[in-house]
Amino acid sequence: MNKIKPSLAKGTRDFGPEEMELREYVINIFRNVFDLFGFRSIQTPSIENIDTLTGNYGDEGDKLIFRILNSGDFLKKSDKNDFKESLLLKSKISNKALRYDLTVPLARFVSMNQDKISIPFKRYQIQPVWRADRPQKGRFREFYQCDVDYIGTNSVVCEAEIIDLVYTLFNKLKIDGIDFKLNNRKILQGIAEVYGLSNDFNDLCILIDKIDKIGLEKFEKELIKKGYNSKSVRSITELFNFNGSNLEKINFIEKIISDSEIGMDGIKEIKKLIEVNNNFTIDFSLARGLSYYTSSIFEVKSNKSNIGSLCGGGRYDNLTENFGLKNMPGIGISFGIERIFELLKDKEDPFIEFLKNKILISYLDSKYLPNCFSIAKKLRDENISVDLISDDIKLKKQLKYANKNNISYVMIIGEDEIKSNSYTFKNMENGTQVKNSIDEIIATMKSLKTNV
Amino acid sequence: MNKIKPSLAKGTRDFGPEEMELREYVINIFRNVFDLFGFRSIQTPSIENIDTLTGNYGDEGDKLIFRILNSGDFLKKSDKNDFKESLLLKSKISNKALRYDLTVPLARFVSMNQDKISIPFKRYQIQPVWRADRPQKGRFREFYQCDVDYIGTNSVVCEAEIIDLVYTLFNKLKIDGIDFKLNNRKILQGIAEVYGLSNDFNDLCILIDKIDKIGLEKFEKELIKKGYNSKSVRSITELFNFNGSNLEKINFIEKIISDSEIGMDGIKEIKKLIEVNNNFTIDFSLARGLSYYTSSIFEVKSNKSNIGSLCGGGRYDNLTENFGLKNMPGIGISFGIERIFELLKDKEDPFIEFLKNKILISYLDSKYLPNCFSIAKKLRDENISVDLISDDIKLKKQLKYANKNNISYVMIIGEDEIKSNSYTFKNMENGTQVKNSIDEIIATMKSLKTNV
Repeated sequence: MNKIKPSLAKGTRDFGPEEMELREYVINIFRNVFDLFGFRSIQTPSIENIDTLTGNYGDEGDKLIFRILNSGDFLKKSDKNDFKESLLLKSKISNKALRYDLTVPLARFVSMNQDKISIPFKRYQIQPVWRADRPQKGRFREFYQCDVDYIGTNSVVCEAEIIDLVYTLFNKLKIDGIDFKLNNRKILQGIAEVYGLSNDFNDLCILIDKIDKIGLEKFEKELIKKGYNSKSVRSITELFNFNGSNLEKINFIEKIISDSEIGMDGIKEIKKLIEVNNNFTIDFSLARGLSYYTSSIFEVKSNKSNIGSLCGGGRYDNLTENFGLKNMPGIGISFGIERIFELLKDKEDPFIEFLKNKILISYLDSKYLPNCFSIAKKLRDENISVDLISDDIKLKKQLKYANKNNISYVMIIGEDEIKSNSYTFKNMENGTQVKNSIDEIIATMKSLKTNV
Repeated sequence: MNKIKPSLAKGTRDFGPEEMELREYVINIFRNVFDLFGFRSIQTPSIENIDTLTGNYGDEGDKLIFRILNSGDFLKKSDKNDFKESLLLKSKISNKALRYDLTVPLARFVSMNQDKISIPFKRYQIQPVWRADRPQKGRFREFYQCDVDYIGTNSVVCEAEIIDLVYTLFNKLKIDGIDFKLNNRKILQGIAEVYGLSNDFNDLCILIDKIDKIGLEKFEKELIKKGYNSKSVRSITELFNFNGSNLEKINFIEKIISDSEIGMDGIKEIKKLIEVNNNFTIDFSLARGLSYYTSSIFEVKSNKSNIGSLCGGGRYDNLTENFGLKNMPGIGISFGIERIFELLKDKEDPFIEFLKNKILISYLDSKYLPNCFSIAKKLRDENISVDLISDDIKLKKQLKYANKNNISYVMIIGEDEIKSNSYTFKNMENGTQVKNSIDEIIATMKSLKTNV
């Protein structure tokens, strides 16, 4: 066997113990909150048939799908002529690919399991996806997505619950300065109708979505370049700047778009939401880029960070139509979980301090090992994490091992200690040490847990 | 867009909410126990460079690796002639592949991160792997593996801790009848030396590993067919049948292989282990199939189930040598986590009953929605999972929704209930219902949690 230089595949990452502790802690909080709100977890396979995936993400998206080479004699279905035509050859040598997102697998899952699931179907899904993107800072070829959806309901309960879920989640993650911004595509359509900008509504939404980056002035210029009336365009940007409470905003826009039936539908929907949960901010300049949203749209940022959108989503009408299942409206929210990991990594993180509450058992001679095992067992029976030094190394090196592995306490076992049931118990955080019985040590460790 | 019939890729599975609840519950127990014993989690990417993977699993294994087609113009590095030679073409159009197991990625990780990790490195890893196997009952192309390893130590502490870890884990999973069988490759080598069967030691181990399936008689025949002395062969099978305590077995074998230096080494190792942890059963007929084991080997079955081995592993000397890193001995145990899921799925599972402790809030008119939200908030603040009916459906249908979603309690909200703070609280498991205040309901739900 030849020796090879170990390396990672382009655009992929290893996660060592430190990173995994953060990631698992955060994912646990996500799971707990989703569970608190009655959402249930599903998982779909990493590999999907190629037909399931292609055609959903546009031409550019389709190019980013990682295809898997057929196994066995992968050339058996192709002949020499296919070789000239790479697209044709591709379809013959590869019939499956890696998951590109969690939305299309959800649509496939719902279509295949309509008899088994109960409607509304409330699911969440936290899994990696793969994209053959050019890797760059912060952009990887494998990354996690985290989606929460209601399938099969038009009820305003969904928006109201999602708002509470978002605040609960970020509260538990100790990310503050959260603002839940909401708009309604129907109101945007009303605005477009009234000002004569309905020609290509989807293009308009994509352009509105860019205002954050390009600014209002450039936005106006782009619209005027497209041939729209400059007065109308100015009216729209003025409207985007309107300030006030949610009700004031609704009253203001109602006068402007009263002639648009669909616009008034949108207003009715927001009014209904305000009655049950008014804990959000209407933002008429929120558009979201994706074309499949049909009603409520929303996005969440923290005003304490410039990391960008932390989550966003909206209502859609036809998630499963491609798979032949009609009348399945829904609403979804997608959390930028990788971005949230990054945000929390940079914070001082007292909230994962408790992870460090482990004890390293260190012994002065290996003849005490049987005693060490019985002490370890006692502590573990009390649900206290214990690591045990395995090799004959000096105490100094043992303490270094504790530091490197985020272990905050070291317990030292020797002849006298065993005889007197009084063990040296060293706090690695502040350097202090005391003599304690095993029961005292258990009590100390338990008090740390309840203080979290 | 054409409508397509939704289907799963061959050999893959969806996991719906019921299955995910079991899987996540079990994985949490694994994680907790690994943490109790001081092991830390890592994750490696799904995609590895092809050089990292091939050459590790034998020719048959290499064929089962799922290769990923290069992205973009995948044919650019190949010409017409490559087309005649599928192996050559394969290497030019695909330079990466899906992870086949967790062992090779661990070796790559350790080799790449030797400066960052502390030795001994105690890691666990629970991730899916992919194999282009022919799918059949119980065999899938995507499945989870769960590996725990000590890297960089020869200490007997490892075996002693792994034994306790295994019993703790299966105890928490409520899988009983567990027997931890242990042997030592060095003792097997000693036996082979003494009886003149050292010609192909690895073949001998593979054959011993098959005794469970083929029986002792066939085993003897196979060895005699290979040209070994029939008397020696019979001596070995007699030795496999020897019964007694661990010490009796060791004393028995010591007399037989006292002339073999390596065999006596193995005996010394087991004696040392018995001194610190004797909670296992020596089984001289345990061999394990893999060639890289060099000392202790072990396997765990439940005598209450015929599902086969639940976990197994052993010591190795040269995990990272392929990547140029020498002197990295270690010991690993691999849990058959998919098999354990299956075993628990078939059990009556009182241990996941507490997952059902959710409340469904049902309302008699949507005008009570604001009250429902504030009740939901109160309950969730107490960490109680709450689902809220979203659409106007009849009570009977709401109760059906609760049943389908494993929700054990339904709380009904109407005018009188709100005025009197006395809500109908229905237990879906036994059909009883009471009138309770919110505080009483909170107390009931909390008492359920502490009863687990």
